[in-house]
Amino acid sequence: MKMTQHPDLVRDCIMQIAPADAAAMTAAQHRLDHLTKPQGSLGQLERLIVRLAGSTAHAMPQVQQPVILLCAADHGIAVAGVSAYPQAVTAQMVLNFLAGGAAISVLAQATNARLIVVDAGVVGDLPDHPDLHRLHIRQGTANFATEPAMTLAEAHVAVLAGISLAQAAHADGMDMLLVGEMGIGNTTAAAALTSALTGAPPTQTVGRGTGIDDARLVHKQALVAQALQRVGLGDGQRWTGDALVLLAEVGGLELAVLVGAMLAAAAQRIPILLDGYITTAAALVAARLAPQLPVHLIAAHCSAEPGHALALAELGLTADNAAAPLLQLDLRLGEGSGAALALPLIQHALRLLHRMATFESAGVSTA
Amino acid sequence: MKMTQHPDLVRDCIMQIAPADAAAMTAAQHRLDHLTKPQGSLGQLERLIVRLAGSTAHAMPQVQQPVILLCAADHGIAVAGVSAYPQAVTAQMVLNFLAGGAAISVLAQATNARLIVVDAGVVGDLPDHPDLHRLHIRQGTANFATEPAMTLAEAHVAVLAGISLAQAAHADGMDMLLVGEMGIGNTTAAAALTSALTGAPPTQTVGRGTGIDDARLVHKQALVAQALQRVGLGDGQRWTGDALVLLAEVGGLELAVLVGAMLAAAAQRIPILLDGYITTAAALVAARLAPQLPVHLIAAHCSAEPGHALALAELGLTADNAAAPLLQLDLRLGEGSGAALALPLIQHALRLLHRMATFESAGVSTA
Repeated sequence: MKMTQHPDLVRDCIMQIAPADAAAMTAAQHRLDHLTKPQGSLGQLERLIVRLAGSTAHAMPQVQQPVILLCAADHGIAVAGVSAYPQAVTAQMVLNFLAGGAAISVLAQATNARLIVVDAGVVGDLPDHPDLHRLHIRQGTANFATEPAMTLAEAHVAVLAGISLAQAAHADGMDMLLVGEMGIGNTTAAAALTSALTGAPPTQTVGRGTGIDDARLVHKQALVAQALQRVGLGDGQRWTGDALVLLAEVGGLELAVLVGAMLAAAAQRIPILLDGYITTAAALVAARLAPQLPVHLIAAHCSAEPGHALALAELGLTADNAAAPLLQLDLRLGEGSGAALALPLIQHALRLLHRMATFESAGVSTA
Repeated sequence: MKMTQHPDLVRDCIMQIAPADAAAMTAAQHRLDHLTKPQGSLGQLERLIVRLAGSTAHAMPQVQQPVILLCAADHGIAVAGVSAYPQAVTAQMVLNFLAGGAAISVLAQATNARLIVVDAGVVGDLPDHPDLHRLHIRQGTANFATEPAMTLAEAHVAVLAGISLAQAAHADGMDMLLVGEMGIGNTTAAAALTSALTGAPPTQTVGRGTGIDDARLVHKQALVAQALQRVGLGDGQRWTGDALVLLAEVGGLELAVLVGAMLAAAAQRIPILLDGYITTAAALVAARLAPQLPVHLIAAHCSAEPGHALALAELGLTADNAAAPLLQLDLRLGEGSGAALALPLIQHALRLLHRMATFESAGVSTA
């Protein structure tokens, strides 16, 4: 197989991503076992805390400066009629994010998370705004059912932008990266990536997105099947080539920025809180590039999109692996909203680790 | 069947509990459908919001002054060896609640919830403390496997105390009641109540509590079976008599206080956030007294205790009924900790209802 050459910065990030720190995990579990509660009684939250210890290499991890990186872009596939909403909604929603009226705007404010909005390739011209980063790579992708969504060079620029944004946020103190997205048509790209990277057929990876009917669902499945065929994948066949080439073929600009941001965050041992199906599909791409990446991932929730559970399982984000999604609320809003809703749970779990008394300090008898 | 006479205040509360307000529910759903998100995309949180609207009779409910009512008491059944911990832990943990070292202390502070600790019948003398209410009914119940846990008169006093505490909290502005408990042996009482009120056998309602081994689990099941037989219930038979008589027979003092508090909260249209198995067993008793009570209940989580799902189902707190528990994290800590962990999710859901823009106000195209 021909090796695809990626920019040095991308390769550096991939090289820096370290495995989970076993000593920190053991120390965190030890502390949990001595807090004034029955051992294991915080259930999945104990497994979460230990996982965060492994990711950060700190026995007492903290999340005090969470950052929501919300990347928006348009998709050529949208012209083929895969969404319940017109393409113009992407740009309209970016304005809504900035004006404070969207779900993620409300949740970012309520959770004291910094919200960074990225125009990774929205169709139409957005105004200047202090909280908006505009990348000017291209306005929307091509229709990936019939041609590559973007060039590999464009994908590289988007990934590098993601790395740069995450590194800047890290320099400003970010201690957890929440990922979010907006883009009419992007559940179709997520389905194509998930099918290609897991081998699951489009019937399992294509869902109703914002709420399409049965006829559009079948059409959306056919478009994903067409795209898989175009890139040379037969039924049930997994993509074995370079993941960024796949991303350029059937992905999206916001997905590419998120891939870069996740690589850079993981390289700095910053845990990444996934949102829904689309951000998880981006994580699949990042994990194919950097096999150690999943230890730095936390699944905020498992959404109503059928492919989401498949993608999470491919990343090992399951109960069997002590990494089950924190919430199962049939959310399907995107924007990072599921991640923001799970954030207080994570912060409260960590407060328990830091602030609860031990049996010894509180004078409570042990079993 | 002979009617059991209850104090007037108890009967008044039961009479005042109103059904869900359909108009408020319709208005809340209408607003949800116009916010800038795909319809229904907040999943279970939309059903939660509509349920809160029904309970409070407000289209735009709020939770700004949550109160955690944490009731502790000892259980005679504990001497029979049903717990991994000695009975002294109940009093020790009450001191830990007051000192700020317990899980619920940390969570109450982190969520800005007022924590009221009630000594409903702890064995041993607890010191005076401004946040501790001492009821002086009796120190612990009798072993309900062989005799009634308490007299009906004692149960009445405890229920009245719960009513009084909830009414006082309501007068101070409480807009959500979170219920919690502490009491070595109280999962055994919860199992007895759940078996009696659902007809499920002890093998389905008895769990490992704080973490007992197989031998103790079988012993605990046998004790519950013995108690059911003592009160005249054959295999699979449901209690058809008065629920407060049952509570006096096989319940607990902290459970009785919680029953009273729930009746008083529901009478004032204050939604009640359940915690784990024990608080849900108390709700079963309250719901038997007041069939309209369940519309005012929210299930914070479904715990690792096997009987919890059964008890929740008996109350209609299931997905089929648009009232699924918010969290499934295998929590089994009690104290109200699961309720406190779910509280931010509820508050954030309500913030979305209040603060998100509508399609019209934000200029976003609809489907």
